[in-house]
Amino acid sequence: MAPERPFAPAEHPDLGWDPRGQSALSGDLLQLFRRLDGVFLGLAGESAAREHRFPPFLAARHLERVNYFRSFPQHATFPVHLEASDENLRAFAGQDALDAQGNLRLTRTSPPQEVLTPAACYHFYPRFAGRTLAEPLYVTTMATCFRREREYRPLRRQWAFSMREIVCLGSAPEVEAFLARQRARLQELIDGWGLPLTWQVATDPFFDPRNPKVLAQKLDPVKHELTFAGDLAIGSVNLHRNYFGEAFGIIRAGEPACSGCVAFGLERWLHAILAHFGPRPGDWPGALSGGTP
Amino acid sequence: MAPERPFAPAEHPDLGWDPRGQSALSGDLLQLFRRLDGVFLGLAGESAAREHRFPPFLAARHLERVNYFRSFPQHATFPVHLEASDENLRAFAGQDALDAQGNLRLTRTSPPQEVLTPAACYHFYPRFAGRTLAEPLYVTTMATCFRREREYRPLRRQWAFSMREIVCLGSAPEVEAFLARQRARLQELIDGWGLPLTWQVATDPFFDPRNPKVLAQKLDPVKHELTFAGDLAIGSVNLHRNYFGEAFGIIRAGEPACSGCVAFGLERWLHAILAHFGPRPGDWPGALSGGTP
Repeated sequence: MAPERPFAPAEHPDLGWDPRGQSALSGDLLQLFRRLDGVFLGLAGESAAREHRFPPFLAARHLERVNYFRSFPQHATFPVHLEASDENLRAFAGQDALDAQGNLRLTRTSPPQEVLTPAACYHFYPRFAGRTLAEPLYVTTMATCFRREREYRPLRRQWAFSMREIVCLGSAPEVEAFLARQRARLQELIDGWGLPLTWQVATDPFFDPRNPKVLAQKLDPVKHELTFAGDLAIGSVNLHRNYFGEAFGIIRAGEPACSGCVAFGLERWLHAILAHFGPRPGDWPGALSGGTP
Repeated sequence: MAPERPFAPAEHPDLGWDPRGQSALSGDLLQLFRRLDGVFLGLAGESAAREHRFPPFLAARHLERVNYFRSFPQHATFPVHLEASDENLRAFAGQDALDAQGNLRLTRTSPPQEVLTPAACYHFYPRFAGRTLAEPLYVTTMATCFRREREYRPLRRQWAFSMREIVCLGSAPEVEAFLARQRARLQELIDGWGLPLTWQVATDPFFDPRNPKVLAQKLDPVKHELTFAGDLAIGSVNLHRNYFGEAFGIIRAGEPACSGCVAFGLERWLHAILAHFGPRPGDWPGALSGGTP
C-alpha cells in the first residue's frame, strides 16, 4: 500500500548524495539494493545464466568496434593517470594539487586506452569474440556504469550507477524467446509487487540525431523500457540483432550470433520502491522487506 | 592439505586477465571471492560494524586534506571526460578515436575534480567530518580501488582491485583495542584454515623516500602486514593515530579522534588460497568450500 504522504527518496537518511553525480548507500537502502539485485539474479538463474564479475575499465579498441565513440561521445569517462617519469610526478607533487575551483592541476598525463564501463553487457562481447556457440549462451553481470549527463539527480540520474544485466547470445529465435520469457517473468514479478510501471518503446540516446541507427530503431523498435511515473526508465529489454555478434565474430548456427539483454538500473529501482511504498522496509513487497518472496 | 603439484593461480580457467592490470572472475573463483568477503564481513560483524557502499570516485579536495597528492602521486587515476560543447564532442566523434598504438585521441577534456578510490577507508573520513562521537564508531566497506604501478601480475598486483576494510574511529585506547581484537580473530581464522601467513612490519609506499612520514613509520610502526609466501601482503592492520580525525575535524572525548583499519586485498587472498590449496573447491577450508565454517 502506498504511504499517505509521498516520500522523497532523495531524503532517505541512508543515502549519501554527491551532487557531482554519485550516491553512497548504507542501512536499509543497502539492504534493499542487495535484495533487488538478488531478485534480478534469480531471474537470471531461471535462464541458467552464468554470473561474471568484470573489472571497471573496458579497452577502447573493443568499443571502437561497435562505433561507441561516434554514437555516444557525450557519455564517456576515461581513466587517466600521470605520465610516470620521476620529473613529471615531482612537478605534480610539488605544487598545490587543486586550483581555487577545486579542479586538479594535472601535469603531463598518459593517453588513456580504456573507458570506464558504459554499460554492463559490453564486457561480454569481447570476452566471447571469435567463438562458435554450440548452444545459446546465457550470462549475467552487475557492474558500476558511467555516463556523463547535463545534470544529475539522486538515484534517478547519476554519473556512476549500478546496472544488472542478463544477456543471451544465440540465433534470432533463441534470443527472441529469451527476451519474451524474461519480459513475461518480470511482468509477473512487478504485478505481484503492485508497482505501477508501464512499457514504452524507446531509442538509444545517440549523440547525433541524424545517425542512421536512430531511424532504424524508430522504424523497427528494438528497445522497450519499463517506466516508473511516466518518465523514469528503470529497466529495459533490448534486441541487438546480430550487431555485436558480427562486430566480434561470434557465430551461432553458421551465422553471426544475435544477442539481446534485459537491463536493470538498480538505483532507479530504489527510487521507484521508495517513492511508491515509502521508506519503511515493512511496507516493501515481500522479497524486498526480508520476508519470504 | 596442499596439492602435490603446485598450481599457478593465474592459470585458473575462471580468471580473465587483462595485462593492463585488471581481472574478471566467474564460476568457482567468483564463489570464492564472495565467500572470502563474507568471512571478512563476519569479522566486521563481530565489532557490530555498519556496512556502507561507496561510489567509485572520491573528491580530490578530500584527499588534498591528507596530502595524498604529495605522498602518492604515482598511484592516482583520475576520471576525465570530454568538455561538453557540441563543437568539441563533434570533433572527437568525427575522427578515428584511436591511434595506431590503441591510445585514445581525446579532444579537449574538462579538468577532473575527482580521483578513482585509492583505498576503501578514505571514504569514511569526509563522510564523518565535523562529527563529535559519543562512542567509538565501527564501519566497514568493500570497494574497487585503483593504483597505478610499474608492472602488474594477475591477482597479485592490479591497477584495479577489491579491498574490504573494517574501520574504527574513537579514542586511542578504543582503536588499539579494536585492532588487537581484530588481529587476534584473524589469526584464529587463518590458523583454522592452515594457511601459512606471517606478520611483517611495513611502511606505506611514499613517492618521496625523504617524506618525514617514512621515518616516523620506521621509528614507531603503525602498519603490520599479513604476508603470503614471504612477499605478498594480503592484509594489513593499520593505526592512523589522529591523522584523519585531525584532518576532518572528527572529535572523540574532546580530542581529534584516532582511527585504525583492518584491510583485505581480496584478489590477493584468491591467489593465496589457490596457490596453497589448489583449484578444487573441495580442497579449500570449510567456510570457503561452501561447507559449514
